[in-house]
Amino acid sequence: MNHIREVDGGFSIIENLKVSGAREGKYGVTIILSPNSVASGVFTSNKVVAAPVTYSKKVVKNGTVSAVFINSGNANCFTGQKGIDDCEELVNLVSKDLNVPKDEVAICSTGVIGREMPMDIISKVAYESISKLGNNPENSLAAAKAIMTTDTFPKEAAIEITLTTGEIVKIAGITKGSGMIAPNMATMLSCIVTDAEMDQKSIKKALKIAADLSFNMIVVDGDESTNDTCLMLANGCSGIDVVKDGEIDSNFQEGLNYICINLAKKMARDGEGATKFIEANVKGAKSEKDAKLAAKSIISSSLFKSAVFGGDPNWGRIVSAIGYSGCELNPDIVTIAIADDEDEVNLVRKGEILAFEDTPYLARAEKIMQSKNVSVNINMFLGDGEATAWGCDLTYDYVKINAEYTT
Amino acid sequence: MNHIREVDGGFSIIENLKVSGAREGKYGVTIILSPNSVASGVFTSNKVVAAPVTYSKKVVKNGTVSAVFINSGNANCFTGQKGIDDCEELVNLVSKDLNVPKDEVAICSTGVIGREMPMDIISKVAYESISKLGNNPENSLAAAKAIMTTDTFPKEAAIEITLTTGEIVKIAGITKGSGMIAPNMATMLSCIVTDAEMDQKSIKKALKIAADLSFNMIVVDGDESTNDTCLMLANGCSGIDVVKDGEIDSNFQEGLNYICINLAKKMARDGEGATKFIEANVKGAKSEKDAKLAAKSIISSSLFKSAVFGGDPNWGRIVSAIGYSGCELNPDIVTIAIADDEDEVNLVRKGEILAFEDTPYLARAEKIMQSKNVSVNINMFLGDGEATAWGCDLTYDYVKINAEYTT
Repeated sequence: MNHIREVDGGFSIIENLKVSGAREGKYGVTIILSPNSVASGVFTSNKVVAAPVTYSKKVVKNGTVSAVFINSGNANCFTGQKGIDDCEELVNLVSKDLNVPKDEVAICSTGVIGREMPMDIISKVAYESISKLGNNPENSLAAAKAIMTTDTFPKEAAIEITLTTGEIVKIAGITKGSGMIAPNMATMLSCIVTDAEMDQKSIKKALKIAADLSFNMIVVDGDESTNDTCLMLANGCSGIDVVKDGEIDSNFQEGLNYICINLAKKMARDGEGATKFIEANVKGAKSEKDAKLAAKSIISSSLFKSAVFGGDPNWGRIVSAIGYSGCELNPDIVTIAIADDEDEVNLVRKGEILAFEDTPYLARAEKIMQSKNVSVNINMFLGDGEATAWGCDLTYDYVKINAEYTT
Repeated sequence: MNHIREVDGGFSIIENLKVSGAREGKYGVTIILSPNSVASGVFTSNKVVAAPVTYSKKVVKNGTVSAVFINSGNANCFTGQKGIDDCEELVNLVSKDLNVPKDEVAICSTGVIGREMPMDIISKVAYESISKLGNNPENSLAAAKAIMTTDTFPKEAAIEITLTTGEIVKIAGITKGSGMIAPNMATMLSCIVTDAEMDQKSIKKALKIAADLSFNMIVVDGDESTNDTCLMLANGCSGIDVVKDGEIDSNFQEGLNYICINLAKKMARDGEGATKFIEANVKGAKSEKDAKLAAKSIISSSLFKSAVFGGDPNWGRIVSAIGYSGCELNPDIVTIAIADDEDEVNLVRKGEILAFEDTPYLARAEKIMQSKNVSVNINMFLGDGEATAWGCDLTYDYVKINAEYTT
């Protein structure tokens, strides 16, 4: 894929875009100023949604976003009328201070559910963040840092794409999220900006495709947040339209998929308490839906995740997780392998069990399970369905972090 | 429910029933000898099933069971033809030694998946167990102990039921299972025997009702085992038929539900690494299905389970878990309370949030979350659906146990 190149600098690679981040204790505020951008978003499917999600859904529906406000430390969810009022107040603050229309300001929040927003602190940090707006790599990093909650490192990515026409456009994005990385979306807030020109219908379609392959394929703990949001903005600064006759340039879509997967993998790798990264590749499934079920089931199994943490080659748990995933499966023809960066070993080959006790297969499996990056590779030999999911091990620290979060 | 009385003695309360248990290291064998019993069973819905599950399904379908063989330490799952042969060999051993027809011997296994059965040891322990068969409380306890894997205590229960006719029948049972306690069934093996007379159709119906209210409502980690089995035998020794004109005596059904819930709760309380017991009661759901979804979602949430472990009143995680459960929900009218044996406090009352920071509600919630038994009580005010689910906290020891299991 040499039409996609990772580059440094985060948001600073996009013209006419200013970002900033500021923090006071657990409360951070990120501001993204991208005047007159065509926008779309994907949001949590949780029936309990935070006030900012309801608000931003309306803004995005209108189709134009000029600024995005994101705060960490409080989710502003299950906060009643006060939560809606707080949302409005913060949007007004941004609208006035940046001189952009109120209905072009999107807002996202992440943090504890069911606590009122500490508006004094958050407003103060918001003003501080706005005062720092700029277009440079340091500001992009500050923006990625201000949205962190239990994340242990900031997550940003930037790429250049050579379109099928030979023209070059850029995409940059940040994300946060490490617990509640769920079957659908994560406890994630992500904002992606491109300098391409796009219409609203195409940006919506492109983001949906990319999110399904990336943010919807990572699992940390199976919990689904009330605040999950990914916003995508196209500011058109490149003057290059990536949509011709209603068709999105295929290289552009690949690039968008690439950056979303890049950000998603960073979230999985930084899953709460994670010490190891797990990838599950399923092919030969009866359908793509079946492949996704199987891949996610492996990534979600607390038993397998614990085994990865302990470096225990208890591969029976992989078999079991596929078995209860709901996908079609014929145990008599399935192939199951595990791999790390150096080795790949078949545990089961077309239904024949290889990794019995005291075999070299099990010895190699044991070594692979000690690695930092463990892949599970399945071929079901039932059809053309393929999928990949990402996750992390289940550790003492996951429990520690979540036993102590609010207090 | 004074027509149901818990009694001591386990299986020894049932006439014409002999049981035994023996163990060598991690390998245990339990034998249950109950000649000519009408039998039924509920089994795992995992697509990967162990050889003994396939075998016992056939036996149960024939309708008569005279002996049950259960081994712990090896699941005999994903073991190919060798696994099927081992199954046959063990059934033959029991059939010959106890002089019962081969097709009346049910077999269950629990333990590691994907490892061949160590037949030398298991046969030896099987002979030892058979030599100890007897009808007394000590034998019942030995039978409950021999099926344990990561269980920390043996699980048995026995009740007397006064039927609607005034007659008295008895039910006794044992179970094992503490990890992989899943959406449907647990990593559980259970055997229940009654001295009532029942036809095969009725025993099947009665067991299904009881299992749905008990074994299918406990969750430890969301993984579903390949070996889950609950067998029920009716040996008819009391001479009392609990089925009249095709109708099961309602007191008998209540009694069967009671003993299955009793055994299920013991499994939840003994969830791998558990330090606390969690009960989720949902009422006012739009349907019973919805109530089950919500109750199980709370019990399954790794985030909430971690919060219970830490005694952290992070009730937003309850809201979130209900929200993504798939049930109908109106956050504006829901009531959410938590309780222990001494206190119950509303966190949200008909949509109004009470447990904000620095309120007495949150202070009481904090105290409740420190308790050994934590209940979550939800009223959705949407209909008549009710359900209760049981589980346990997520602890360092869960991770420890499952990081080290096979090695």
